Amino acid sequence: MPSSVKILGIPGSLRRESFNRRLLEAAQTMLPPETTMELASLEGIPVFNQDLEAHLPPKVVEFKAQIRAADAILFGVPEYNYGVAGPLKNAIDWASRPYTDNSWKEKPVAAVSASVGLLGGSRAVYQLRQSFVFLGMHPINLPEVFVTFAPQKFDAQGRFIDPDGRKYLESLLTTLVDWTRRLRGH
Amino acid sequence: MPSSVKILGIPGSLRRESFNRRLLEAAQTMLPPETTMELASLEGIPVFNQDLEAHLPPKVVEFKAQIRAADAILFGVPEYNYGVAGPLKNAIDWASRPYTDNSWKEKPVAAVSASVGLLGGSRAVYQLRQSFVFLGMHPINLPEVFVTFAPQKFDAQGRFIDPDGRKYLESLLTTLVDWTRRLRGH
Amino acid sequence: MPSSVKILGIPGSLRRESFNRRLLEAAQTMLPPETTMELASLEGIPVFNQDLEAHLPPKVVEFKAQIRAADAILFGVPEYNYGVAGPLKNAIDWASRPYTDNSWKEKPVAAVSASVGLLGGSRAVYQLRQSFVFLGMHPINLPEVFVTFAPQKFDAQGRFIDPDGRKYLESLLTTLVDWTRRLRGH
Amino acid sequence: MPSSVKILGIPGSLRRESFNRRLLEAAQTMLPPETTMELASLEGIPVFNQDLEAHLPPKVVEFKAQIRAADAILFGVPEYNYGVAGPLKNAIDWASRPYTDNSWKEKPVAAVSASVGLLGGSRAVYQLRQSFVFLGMHPINLPEVFVTFAPQKFDAQGRFIDPDGRKYLESLLTTLVDWTRRLRGH
Repeated sequence: MPSSVKILGIPGSLRRESFNRRLLEAAQTMLPPETTMELASLEGIPVFNQDLEAHLPPKVVEFKAQIRAADAILFGVPEYNYGVAGPLKNAIDWASRPYTDNSWKEKPVAAVSASVGLLGGSRAVYQLRQSFVFLGMHPINLPEVFVTFAPQKFDAQGRFIDPDGRKYLESLLTTLVDWTRRLRGH
Repeated sequence: MPSSVKILGIPGSLRRESFNRRLLEAAQTMLPPETTMELASLEGIPVFNQDLEAHLPPKVVEFKAQIRAADAILFGVPEYNYGVAGPLKNAIDWASRPYTDNSWKEKPVAAVSASVGLLGGSRAVYQLRQSFVFLGMHPINLPEVFVTFAPQKFDAQGRFIDPDGRKYLESLLTTLVDWTRRLRGH
Repeated sequence: MPSSVKILGIPGSLRRESFNRRLLEAAQTMLPPETTMELASLEGIPVFNQDLEAHLPPKVVEFKAQIRAADAILFGVPEYNYGVAGPLKNAIDWASRPYTDNSWKEKPVAAVSASVGLLGGSRAVYQLRQSFVFLGMHPINLPEVFVTFAPQKFDAQGRFIDPDGRKYLESLLTTLVDWTRRLRGH
Repeated sequence: MPSSVKILGIPGSLRRESFNRRLLEAAQTMLPPETTMELASLEGIPVFNQDLEAHLPPKVVEFKAQIRAADAILFGVPEYNYGVAGPLKNAIDWASRPYTDNSWKEKPVAAVSASVGLLGGSRAVYQLRQSFVFLGMHPINLPEVFVTFAPQKFDAQGRFIDPDGRKYLESLLTTLVDWTRRLRGH
């Protein structure tokens, strides 16, 4: 029997109707065997100020604990202005601090994105991949999931209904879980 | 006589001893003729939430007014985790909203960066250049100012004392002001 | 009457049936007033070797003359392996040499891309934008033209038949020509 | 005893006095136990043309065989015009073809860079990391080796003499070899 894998899904938007949160909710319904996935919330994480890192805000402490407890991370990445959404980058920066307690270190990771435009948030995801280098995270390569023209791909109840997209998302989850097992050696 | 140019300097960190704020303060002492430069503060700008953009927070309204009143923008860009510091990207995202009132549009811009490391924040600046495309900003090309190993380049009073760096910064300011005049046609 | 603008179109592929060349051929049929556009060919440009730059190969000399004679540049950018196609980057590197005779300097520029995949070559174009900084070129911002799923967007005769894509391409050409006139002041 | 690891070093320049080749030659003198490293040459690889990929040029066939025989890849990446040197990207593109025989697939990889400038070729390396995603390669994260102001870091015989740089290079090699063993499970 394969070893169990706990994924932490992190939707990068505070918006109530966030496509990226819905995409992660869809992922929760198609997990591979022996895999669980809970969703974090960025609600309540303040704007980062390095002067405060000796006394981390309670919500950041909680966020860091969720990350530490996870075997793998799945980001839902909003793209704002051709880059990583400020709120998500802000939360990532908090959880990397202090430098001696970077919560992201060594985590296997994948990042998906949904956006209203032609390129499906891909620009933001490629920027995030650059941050993974310093954070010490281990991203999967392919498949990638970029949901383009997002309003057409979710139904009125917010369910992700694009058949091809669902197929890729399921394949990405399997790849992430396999990668997680490969990196820990069992 | 050349036309007057008002630069808005935007330090991207909330940290009291921020090298990037000090770098912009140094810039204020070496402005070309007919040029003024004030510094914005990101203090008090909350984490972005698109659901709130119909009623922008007062601090965001003020920030947008400062940008609108400027002829050119000079960012001081902290690099966190090989990307644009979350707090700065967050402020940029706010000021770009709502979509029909993007305050950055058509602004000439330059971005400088100081960091403790080998690469002087360059990775963050190149990511920001990608955002300029969608924001509709017009960046200068060279010279670039990346202050590497920043703690060695500022004195105990926080003054930027690197001779080469000062020369490049002065040249960058002249280039930005010339570019601003060229783009407005006088 | 507006001043005349000569665009040099540079398709970045040697492939006979290149979608990017066809895209530039489509552009030739929708030029704004007082604008002409010829296409360069990379055929015969050898692999770059800095040891040879004191005696540039004849084909490179010719390519540099074409660039110098142009008022603006329009690249058709093939994306290979999520980056700029090697042959195109190779030709750009040649024409930038020797350092004291960088042919690209100060040229207004736009870059379009067609590819078989979901993202239409956008990754390659964003990498190229980074090169423009050092080359001293002045790119337009929006609109961008990324032709996704290219085989569906050209007919059997190689004509670009996507209605939306054609509209964006025409708008991009107008933007490039206006930008060229704005930068030269008339 | 650890399993043996064969690294293929790939200097991305044809220049006789290439700093990047010398950097890889330095790496050959500081290999971890049970590790060997030979250097490839890009000499004779023509400019890529997809129409020719059904009959790969002999030099490309040879290059692909070298890659296939290696357990890990170490690139020495010249940066030209803020991007990956054209000749190196060209060789990478060849070896990825045809699509059904991508020689890079699943290879552990690291990339180092030396350049005359302030940023040590880092911009090119970050672009290359983006290509690794599609190529299916597995890059190490830290340490990175970017040799800035390269002419000061090599002696008259071309030996890499920067003490800190040598220390990081040795650490990078150990990391790459450990990563290779971890990915293959022994």
